[in-house]
Amino acid sequence: MTKLKGELLYEGKAKQVFQAEGNIDQLILSYKNDATAFNGEKKAVFSGKGKYNNLISAKVFEYLRDKGVASHFVRSLNDTEQLVVKTDIIPVEVVVRNIAAGSITRRLGIEEKTVFTPPLVELFYKKDELGDPLINDEHALLLTDVKSEELEAIKVMALEVNQHLQGFFESINLTLADFKLEFGRNAVGDIILSDEVSPDTCRLWDKDSGAKMDKDVFREDLGDLLQVYDAILQRLEAVV
Amino acid sequence: MTKLKGELLYEGKAKQVFQAEGNIDQLILSYKNDATAFNGEKKAVFSGKGKYNNLISAKVFEYLRDKGVASHFVRSLNDTEQLVVKTDIIPVEVVVRNIAAGSITRRLGIEEKTVFTPPLVELFYKKDELGDPLINDEHALLLTDVKSEELEAIKVMALEVNQHLQGFFESINLTLADFKLEFGRNAVGDIILSDEVSPDTCRLWDKDSGAKMDKDVFREDLGDLLQVYDAILQRLEAVV
Repeated sequence: MTKLKGELLYEGKAKQVFQAEGNIDQLILSYKNDATAFNGEKKAVFSGKGKYNNLISAKVFEYLRDKGVASHFVRSLNDTEQLVVKTDIIPVEVVVRNIAAGSITRRLGIEEKTVFTPPLVELFYKKDELGDPLINDEHALLLTDVKSEELEAIKVMALEVNQHLQGFFESINLTLADFKLEFGRNAVGDIILSDEVSPDTCRLWDKDSGAKMDKDVFREDLGDLLQVYDAILQRLEAVV
Repeated sequence: MTKLKGELLYEGKAKQVFQAEGNIDQLILSYKNDATAFNGEKKAVFSGKGKYNNLISAKVFEYLRDKGVASHFVRSLNDTEQLVVKTDIIPVEVVVRNIAAGSITRRLGIEEKTVFTPPLVELFYKKDELGDPLINDEHALLLTDVKSEELEAIKVMALEVNQHLQGFFESINLTLADFKLEFGRNAVGDIILSDEVSPDTCRLWDKDSGAKMDKDVFREDLGDLLQVYDAILQRLEAVV
């Protein structure tokens, strides 16, 4: 069953968001080939990247659905598009860190590869013009319409998703160092997992070689991004 | 009763800290004339500033003691020195904001003079080489030896101090926009208010003119810093 795209509602750095024809409560996400890093300062286009993120993210959301995690994902439509439930996105990026990498090492002087026990949850205010600054719970309540109980629920969900994703990536021989989630409210106001879960939004390290198999390959010019994303998809197709 | 200074234990940007002779659990704080801003990037010496901060901070701590707030303050020794209880400082700066000013306006895009209801509490990791970065509760537990219950107690104390200080400064016709506190553990492990409370650590605005009467005069080159600090001390001496 194909779905027809309606109006383009929003275009972000990584995805276009269309109204789904015939269902006001659904959207079509179209994954772009653009890669951006450092708040948009570094940019490139990788032909095929949209396909990998769409297909990998779909597999992650299917796995999470099987684990009972409520998300916006409905189903894949084709190589680059997926049907999702429309949500009112809470403009807070929820980062879960199992192992120190990236910005936190510079920001707090924590050595790379330091293991966080328990995992660390950080909130960032989703605002490009401010560079997505780190915020605390009180800031989130002040800057967004999220309620205190919702924020607590989001943090609990993020840690549960972390447990599921660790198992998921473990099964394809990858360590999940950290990842970013977004949440939104569906038509009846329930908070559900939204956005994407892909090598663009997770730090994934090969368990044997330690090689980075995520967007850090682009951020740090470590090699062929598409080859790495293709390897992840192949590993997933072999086991899922 | 004079107190003799023992060994210099520590020298910070604004104060020297000496062991107090004859009492291992007490220190002598000696307020310096140095002014620094923007993480030490802007510096100057104001002859007499140490005296103002010492005498103003002493009056604030005496007021807080009368309100039942446990602090390290014992008594003034002379114009620039005060006797305090030795504490093991928790390396977290606790900022309470009643009205938006300074870094938060740039960091989160909040308009200056926005009123925070309830007041906003922010934590910063006290680490010069990292520029005292904003942290959340989980970071504080990770980076310092503070315990979760202690952190909650510190935030409650900070908001109580805020209520007392608002009344204190109101009595000398000043609005308390925001301020920074530090806490430490005394010899038996109780958390008590430490450091200083002065125009170096508070944003104080004249209620009639709106004029800034604090270190922003130095940060923003608004006029004669010593004149402003002297005016605060004079107002205090007239009412306290």
